[in-house]
This record gives sequence, structure tokens and C-alpha cells, in this order.
Amino acid sequence: MDAALSQSKAMCPFMKKATAAGLRAMTTSARPVASPCGGTISKLQVLARRCPVMGKAMAVQSARIGHAGFAGVAGVAAMSTISGHGKTPKAKLHTGRSHEANAVEGSLFRDKVQLPPRLPVKPQQAGAHNAHAAKFDYNGFYETELDKKHKDKSYRYFNNINRLAKEFPRAHMASKEDRVTVWCANDYLGMGRNPHVLKAMHETLDEYGGGAGGTRNISGHNKHAVELEQSIAKLHATEDALVFSSCYVANDATLATLGSKMPDCVILSDSLNHASMIQGIRHSGARKVIFKHNDVKDLEEKLASLPLHVPKIIAFESVYSMCGSIGPIEEICDLAEKYGALTFLDEVHAVGMYGPHGAGVAEHLDFEAHANGKPRGTIMDRIDIFTGTLGKAYGCVGGYIAGSAKLIDTVRSLAPGFIFTTSLPPAVMAGARAAIEYQMSYGGDRRLQQLHTRAVKEALGARNIPVIPNPSHIIPILVGNAELAKQASDRLLQNHQIYVQSINYPTVPVGQERLRITPTPGHTKQYRDQLVSAIESIWQELGIKRTSEWAAEGGFIGVGEAGSAQAETPLWTDAQLGIEGSGPIEVLLEQEAEGKVATPAAAAAAA
Amino acid sequence: MDAALSQSKAMCPFMKKATAAGLRAMTTSARPVASPCGGTISKLQVLARRCPVMGKAMAVQSARIGHAGFAGVAGVAAMSTISGHGKTPKAKLHTGRSHEANAVEGSLFRDKVQLPPRLPVKPQQAGAHNAHAAKFDYNGFYETELDKKHKDKSYRYFNNINRLAKEFPRAHMASKEDRVTVWCANDYLGMGRNPHVLKAMHETLDEYGGGAGGTRNISGHNKHAVELEQSIAKLHATEDALVFSSCYVANDATLATLGSKMPDCVILSDSLNHASMIQGIRHSGARKVIFKHNDVKDLEEKLASLPLHVPKIIAFESVYSMCGSIGPIEEICDLAEKYGALTFLDEVHAVGMYGPHGAGVAEHLDFEAHANGKPRGTIMDRIDIFTGTLGKAYGCVGGYIAGSAKLIDTVRSLAPGFIFTTSLPPAVMAGARAAIEYQMSYGGDRRLQQLHTRAVKEALGARNIPVIPNPSHIIPILVGNAELAKQASDRLLQNHQIYVQSINYPTVPVGQERLRITPTPGHTKQYRDQLVSAIESIWQELGIKRTSEWAAEGGFIGVGEAGSAQAETPLWTDAQLGIEGSGPIEVLLEQEAEGKVATPAAAAAAA
Repeated sequence: MDAALSQSKAMCPFMKKATAAGLRAMTTSARPVASPCGGTISKLQVLARRCPVMGKAMAVQSARIGHAGFAGVAGVAAMSTISGHGKTPKAKLHTGRSHEANAVEGSLFRDKVQLPPRLPVKPQQAGAHNAHAAKFDYNGFYETELDKKHKDKSYRYFNNINRLAKEFPRAHMASKEDRVTVWCANDYLGMGRNPHVLKAMHETLDEYGGGAGGTRNISGHNKHAVELEQSIAKLHATEDALVFSSCYVANDATLATLGSKMPDCVILSDSLNHASMIQGIRHSGARKVIFKHNDVKDLEEKLASLPLHVPKIIAFESVYSMCGSIGPIEEICDLAEKYGALTFLDEVHAVGMYGPHGAGVAEHLDFEAHANGKPRGTIMDRIDIFTGTLGKAYGCVGGYIAGSAKLIDTVRSLAPGFIFTTSLPPAVMAGARAAIEYQMSYGGDRRLQQLHTRAVKEALGARNIPVIPNPSHIIPILVGNAELAKQASDRLLQNHQIYVQSINYPTVPVGQERLRITPTPGHTKQYRDQLVSAIESIWQELGIKRTSEWAAEGGFIGVGEAGSAQAETPLWTDAQLGIEGSGPIEVLLEQEAEGKVATPAAAAAAA
Repeated sequence: MDAALSQSKAMCPFMKKATAAGLRAMTTSARPVASPCGGTISKLQVLARRCPVMGKAMAVQSARIGHAGFAGVAGVAAMSTISGHGKTPKAKLHTGRSHEANAVEGSLFRDKVQLPPRLPVKPQQAGAHNAHAAKFDYNGFYETELDKKHKDKSYRYFNNINRLAKEFPRAHMASKEDRVTVWCANDYLGMGRNPHVLKAMHETLDEYGGGAGGTRNISGHNKHAVELEQSIAKLHATEDALVFSSCYVANDATLATLGSKMPDCVILSDSLNHASMIQGIRHSGARKVIFKHNDVKDLEEKLASLPLHVPKIIAFESVYSMCGSIGPIEEICDLAEKYGALTFLDEVHAVGMYGPHGAGVAEHLDFEAHANGKPRGTIMDRIDIFTGTLGKAYGCVGGYIAGSAKLIDTVRSLAPGFIFTTSLPPAVMAGARAAIEYQMSYGGDRRLQQLHTRAVKEALGARNIPVIPNPSHIIPILVGNAELAKQASDRLLQNHQIYVQSINYPTVPVGQERLRITPTPGHTKQYRDQLVSAIESIWQELGIKRTSEWAAEGGFIGVGEAGSAQAETPLWTDAQLGIEGSGPIEVLLEQEAEGKVATPAAAAAAA
């Protein structure tokens, strides 16, 4: 010991200057172990850890003797050979208490891992003398990941789009003078600029301020949350509802919670399900079974292969956002009943848009019953868990689930993604509620949205532009090439002041790249004509394949396939739209705009 | 076959009525497999699946022969013995195309599972004749989970708290007449009612409407996002920043993405880390190593046990919300450098509150350097990833990360929780940016918040009320019993019109239940006096332990431990607050309120 001390004294600039008394003071100045927020280290240890020689020696020693002994004998032994000190402390040492148990973790998460087994050291790196060179290259990792995105053309360039409330559906780009028409937003009904919604938001801002100020449990629960959840429950005719930061979070948190808590749970997931559900299923740790998109036969085979007593969730969507297809809701309810599964229906792209009250496709399937206020016994009544968004047709932000009181209370009580996050701002909740209530009592916006959708689909169809057939409000135009789709989108923006984002891999499969167009009630004739002629000229300029060309190759994902367009009867029937026998849509729309006709539906909608 | 047919004709009400031609038509009416959104089932199959006899037979048969053959021979064979039909279809069958590959999933998630191995059927249930009884009891599951929460006293009852912008820090309960003073919100600086913030929100609402209308990639990227991210990057002196729906999502998505993408990544996590980080680590699938709270010695042992070349993330917080302890940021930076780890610092409870510009504790540790606009070489400059919230001191909602341009671009490009969700509303982003900019240029709110914190801590200390010592702005008062904590909270609300939520298990460990008090600049003398005397009387009424009683037992988590209160010097020094030698805080505050003194700091803050 003495030899080591005098040897280090000779070599180390710190030890040369240190006195025995000074060193002793430093080793005994450690705060008591039980001291609050005080940590457990001596001043000398703090200094020693910064020494390039001692730091490494201490770490190796502590790792060898395990975790408990470090502060005791080993620590003192290490101290006695202190041999260097690189720099003085820069700021005060603020440590907190170290002996508080983490009860949250213990109770919420089953698979707590304490210390992983030692990883094998790669031979070439263990042998390297330059320790620095062996450290992981984080920048290199970032560059590699970004390079991959550039190479497979999936790197995203964001367009700066500022949607103008008073000029809907127009927006300005980075410069205020640069006006464009937005044709790809999910504010499907223009509720983001609806005067009732904005009034509710302004008033709530004035009275209750900008933010909620806390989680739902700690000062973030308020009348806005209560009333919004009541409106959502009324919309879906369920007992209760629960609001989340977004529907991404609602899907993720709900599937992860139910899937992890129900013993041996299996989640059956449509192959085209949204990323939020895929993540929720992953996070649940439950067994996942993917069934073919909208294929109830495949789903049934998979259900039948599972024991009846095992809990199961069938997770699917009503409107699939990127192709506009619609899920076979009733058939899935039948299967769920037969095999004892919960139905988890994502109505994100359908709420506000379908059904007499805008509750979604499930409501639309029993249009008359719901229009007459009789939800019991309908298909909607058979769904166990609805999820929906406040950020698309309702024009705000946030998401929710709706279902039985017990289900909602269970998710409310168990889901970390609900519990440990700040509530949505009061003004957002008030605005969303105003939007839901407005759309519950007025059907004119969604009717007009459907008419505009039909008009655009008809006009594009007439020009041999390859719209992927579907029964919903989505207009996917097939391009089939990533480079071309990006070029088409760029030219629409630059040459025609029309904003339609191209949808490339990984959002759609390679070879199915498309433009996804979403009409709104604000897309009146001048905008539609402009869009159609711009697309026509770009298809010409870039030589993008027409429907007839796809047909000549036998067709592809519905485009140019015999009878496929006819097979896709719109979900909104002519009768529901009040346009039976009214002839071409554009003529009707023009007549309606001029007040020449008042269809029963238009009159009812306006009432 | 013919025998089976005639037998079923005799028994089955459906077959009795069916003609051979009708049955044949139903079996051949299946849509072609390649039809878009058309599904792959015949009409007869749809009906058959609903039959209580046939449905089960078909399912068992299809499960036996595997998934491929169902639509072919087996299907036809099954059809020939159709024997019943329960009900007619209620609504049109809307199926979508079934042959579209799910490219998103394939690329984003590694561990795609197709079909799980058959689960063993429990013997007693396999033998049961009543198939219905064997189905999983979902309601029973909900009830059991809720019962558990009631039994361990962790069931949450939300208080309806409507914080009033014009009467901050007052709120009304369910009834507008029921006024209370809020003492536990995280709107620490009252920015939720700051006129600059509200002005920015109102103006943005008017000009740009309620919601963003899309994901960042599809019409939801705008100048509000660009400017907010610029302000955040400026705040933390980083190259770039990225905004998320919440900091829960920011933590979850960032840790999950980095942890899953970096090969063999290990995440070292402080034992008191927030649920959002715990979830992110879990979701990453990376190896997790928990180190003792704020214990750099324990952290170093764990770092030293890992190979140098392996990527590592040290995830920790600056201010730990429930006890107010502060992380040893500089020491952790030293260790990160030495062992080649990334530092991931959650400043959620510190942004807006510490440092000359409100950038958090990391900035505060080099107060002078940052006040002089020299961030390079500081502790803050050594942090790789900051995360922060827009929903606490900044008074809005949302979260973010800040760091190098490459890191941000990588998370932006890879994190599903960022990519696949609607952007925050323009008004929220504009309001949050106004709050950050305001707090960057004005230090008066956080100074006053600190003075009010000191005043309350002093007053409670003088009355022998057991405040858990810590160097931050959090005032945790130890109760140590779930029932008592809830009672104390309820009595404060009912008898004193003071809202302080009790913090029970699982948010804190059993036996450490507490009241968590958060002063703001709005908590002037009348509110403080009211709070202190209300707590005094409740401690009296309920016989809750005093500091001296904890001391008599040797102290507990800092309360009543010798020298522990002294050890916890506030992070904001007297010099930084401009109150050196000014005597008791309450006197100073009174003098300041009356304009009798103008301390240099107060003057500078007001400038």
C-alpha cells in the first residue's frame, strides 16, 4: 500500500500536490447512504472517476466484485492508489436520492430485466489498443439509416402547407403569396374552419386558457373531457368513451393493454391495418395472427384454429385509407360472435363521413334504423371497441375509444399511454365536441363530400385516368412508379398550384405508388375542373399509364380489370344521397349550386 | 353425397325451400379472386357461415385441411351438405380487395409472426359440451382488473377541475360556482393564460383553423411546425428538433426507434424514470439495464460490464417529478463519454424553469456561460438527446426531442409514432412557440416561481410539516399512507377549496404516499397562507405524522434525517435569484409586491 502510494505520488500531478489529511477528508466527505437526494459517493471518488487511469481501474474492479461491495472495502482500496485527476468540477454536483424504489415499473410491466448477461466482445475490437476507436459510431449509424431511405426512395421531403381557414381549400406555401389548392388533406369536411368549431375554441381559450395543465388524474380532468366523452359515447351509442392524445395513441395503448393483460390473448389483424394497430399489437406481446385483407374466409380459418376459450381480438378498419376499401364489418361480427372474439374497429377515416349521424361505416350499414334513433340490435351495436379520430373529419386533433363502461374503465385504469400524459387542451376538446355535435345533426357536408367525390371519379374515369376502384370517399390514382409519382406530385404543385402528396413505399407496396386525392365540400367546380385538367396534362407530359393500358396488361389492383369499377358500388347509395335518377353529377351539382333543385336529401340535410 | 343432400333437405328449413338451380347460382356467384375490394367468398358460403350446424363444420374442416384449400375442393364439398340458415343478411356486403401486400409492416417491423402454434386446449373445457360456456369471459376480465385496482387503493377518481384563465390559479369544479385554488397543476409558470400565448393561439386559429389536417408528410407540415422546431433547437442550442403529439410519445418513439435499430443496443435507465421512457425501452426490444436512482457509481459499474463497442443509451431525467430530485447530469456525461454511450435527458419538468433562458437544468449548470450566449463546451452541449414538453411550463400540449441534425432526421424518418399521426394544431404550435420565446427572453416568472416555492417550503418547515427535501421546485409532503393521503386531499378540496391531488401507489411506492404541491408565480401571499394553514389543520385533524415524528423514528426518505434538508441546497442560488442577504423570503416578496425593493435580478428579469 505504502509503496503504491509513493509510486503514484511520483507519477501523478494530483497526488504530488495532495496531502494525506486532504485525501482523508475527501474520502470521508461522502454523504450518508440514507441522505435524501444526496447520492452515495465521496468527493475523492468523483475526482477519481475523471482520471483516465483510475477511472478505468475502478470500473473494472467494481464490475469484478459485483454491485454491492463498491462503496465499501473495494472503494477504499481503490482510493488508496489514486493517481491522477483531469479537471475540476464545472458545476455543483446535484444528485438525488438513490434509494427510492420504482413501484410504477414493478406493477405495470411484467418483464423487468435487471442486468443482461455479458455480451460477447467482438475479437477484433477486444484486441484493439485504441479504446476510442472501438466505441460505437452513432453518426455513422444515422448516416447509414438515412442513406437507406434515400436509396429506396422512401426518404420524405415535407411540403410547407399552410391551410387557410378563410380560403378553404386553399393554402399558402413558405411564402404567403404562394397559393395552392390542397387536394390531399384529411380535414375531409372542412370542419377545421367551421364557424361553430372555431367559436367554441376561441371561447374556451379565453375562459380556460391554452393547456390542460396536467394528466387526467392530476388537474387535467375537466368538463371539456367529460362532455367530449359523452358526445362520443352518444355518437357510437356506447356506454362510455375515452379520449387520448391521438388515435395513434388510442390504438397503440388499447391493443397493447388488452393484449398484454388478457391471459394468452391472440390478436387477429387485417394485413392492411394502420401502423398504430400494428405497433399496439407488437407492444402487447400477444400472439399476432395476420389475416388477408378483408378476407373473412381466411379470418375464419385462423379463428377456427384457435381454442375457443382463448381471448381474441379481431382488429380491423372500416375505411382503409390508402386504397379506400371497406371492411366486411357484419361478417366479422358474425365470426367474432361464433368464436368468442372481441371486435376492435378503427373508424378513423369514416367518422363524420358515413351514417346518418356521422358515426361511421358501422352506422351507415343500418342507415334507416339509426336515422330513426334505433341503434339496438344493429351492426354498430355488435362492435365491442370503436376507435376514432378528432383530427380528420372533425378538424381538430386527438383520438378515442368507445365501448362498454367496464371496458373503458379498464383501459382508463391500466393504459400507461392514457394515464401518464398531459390531457388535450380544453379548447381542442371543446372544438372537437362542437364538430361531432354539428355533424351529428347536419348531414349536408358529408353528402356534398360524396357528390364531389363522385364527380371527380367520373371525370377522371372519362379521361382514362387510372382511379383504383373503391366504394368510399378516397380517390387513389395509380401511378405504379416511385419516381413518376413524386414527379407528378411536384409538377402538380409547381406548374398547377395543386397539392397532392405522392404516396410511395413503405406506405404502399413498391409498384403500387399512387396519388391519393381527398375531395371536400369546399372543392367546388372550378377546383375540380382545374384538378382534372392538370392531372390530364401531367399524365400526358410524363407518359403515365392510362386505365386502358393497365387493362391491356390484364389489369392491376382493380385498375383496368373487367367489371371491377362496376363491382364497387359506392357505400352512399343514390337514394341516401337523394339523387335517384338525377343524371350526371356535375349537372346536378350545378343545379343545386344555382338553387334550381332542392333534392329531398339536400333539403333534409339543410334542415 | 345425394343421401346427405336429401337428409339435410328433410331437416333444414333453408334447404327445404332451396332449389338446385338456386343453390348452384349461389355457389358460382363468388367474385374472382383478383377483383378489387371484392373479397373471395360465394353467397352460399356467406349464408353457410351463419348456420349453427354448417358454420362449425366448415370451420373445423378448413382448419383440418389448412388455409390454402378452403376456397377450392373443401369449400365445394362443404357446400353440398348445407343444412341451415339462421337469418337473412342485414346490410350489403362491403368487402375490400384482399390481395394487396402490406409493405409497411414488412419494412418497419422485424418480428412479424404469421400464425402461432396451436394453443393447447384446456382439458376441462375441451370436454365441455356447451361451446358457449367455454368462450373467454371479457366482462369477468374487466371486473377482475377493476377489483384489483379498488382493492390495492390504486383505482383513480378524477376530480373535475376547470382552470380559469382570468382567475389563475383558481378553477371551478363541475359547478361554475364551486371555486377552488389549484396547487398541483404542471402549468408551473401560468403560461396557459399568458396574453402572448393566447394572442398567438387566437390569431392562428382565425387564420389557419382548428386542426393541421394531416400527418407531417401529408399536408400537416407547415410554418408553425418549422418555426416551433427552430425555437426549440435555439433553446437547447442544438442543430435541430422534432415535435411529437406529446413528450410521452417523444420518449416512447425515440427510445423504441433507436433501441430497436442500433444493433445489440443496451439502454441504461434510471430506476425512477417516467413511464414513457420505461415503455419506450420495452418497445425497443433492446436490453435494459436499470441503475439505482441518481447513483453514478452503480451506473458506472453497469456501463463497465458492457463491451465498449456496443451502442448504449443512458436515459435519465433532470427533475424527477414526484420527489423533486435532480439528476447528476455532468457525471453522467462524463460516464457517457468514457464508455461511448448516448445521453438521453428528459427535461420535461425543467424546461422553462431553469437556466437563464429556461432551457432546463443542463443549461442552469453553466448559468453564466449561457447567460452570455456561449453554449459551446458546456454541460448542455454534451447531451446527445434532449426531450421536453410543451404541456407543462409552456402551458400548451405536445412534446419534442432536440439534438444533432442527423439524429433528428433519423428519428423523423424511422419512428412510426412520429410518422403515422396527425400533426398538432397550428394554434397549439404557435402558442407553444410564443411561450418558449417569451420564457427565453424573460426570467421573471421562473424566479418568482422559485421564490414562492421557497416561501412555501419555509412555512411548512416551520410548522413541522414533513416536506421531502429536494433542490427543485417540487414540494412533496410525505403522508405515508394511501387512505390518509386521499383523505387529506379530499378534505383540502371540500373544507378548504384547495385542490392537491394525492399521489398514491403505483405512482409512488406503498408507504411513500404524498401530496405533491406545485407553486406558480400566481400563488401570491393570500393563497400561500391559506394553503399552509389548511395543511396545518388537516395534519392536526387526521393526526398525520410530523417531521419530528419521522425524525424520532430515524427519518424516512429524507424527512427528519439529520442534515438532509441542509444538504439540499436549491439549484437556483440566492445570487441567481438576486436575493443575497435579503432576509426572510416572505418579507422580500412583500417588499417586492409593494415596489419597495428592486433587486438586480428582478430588474433584469423585468427588462
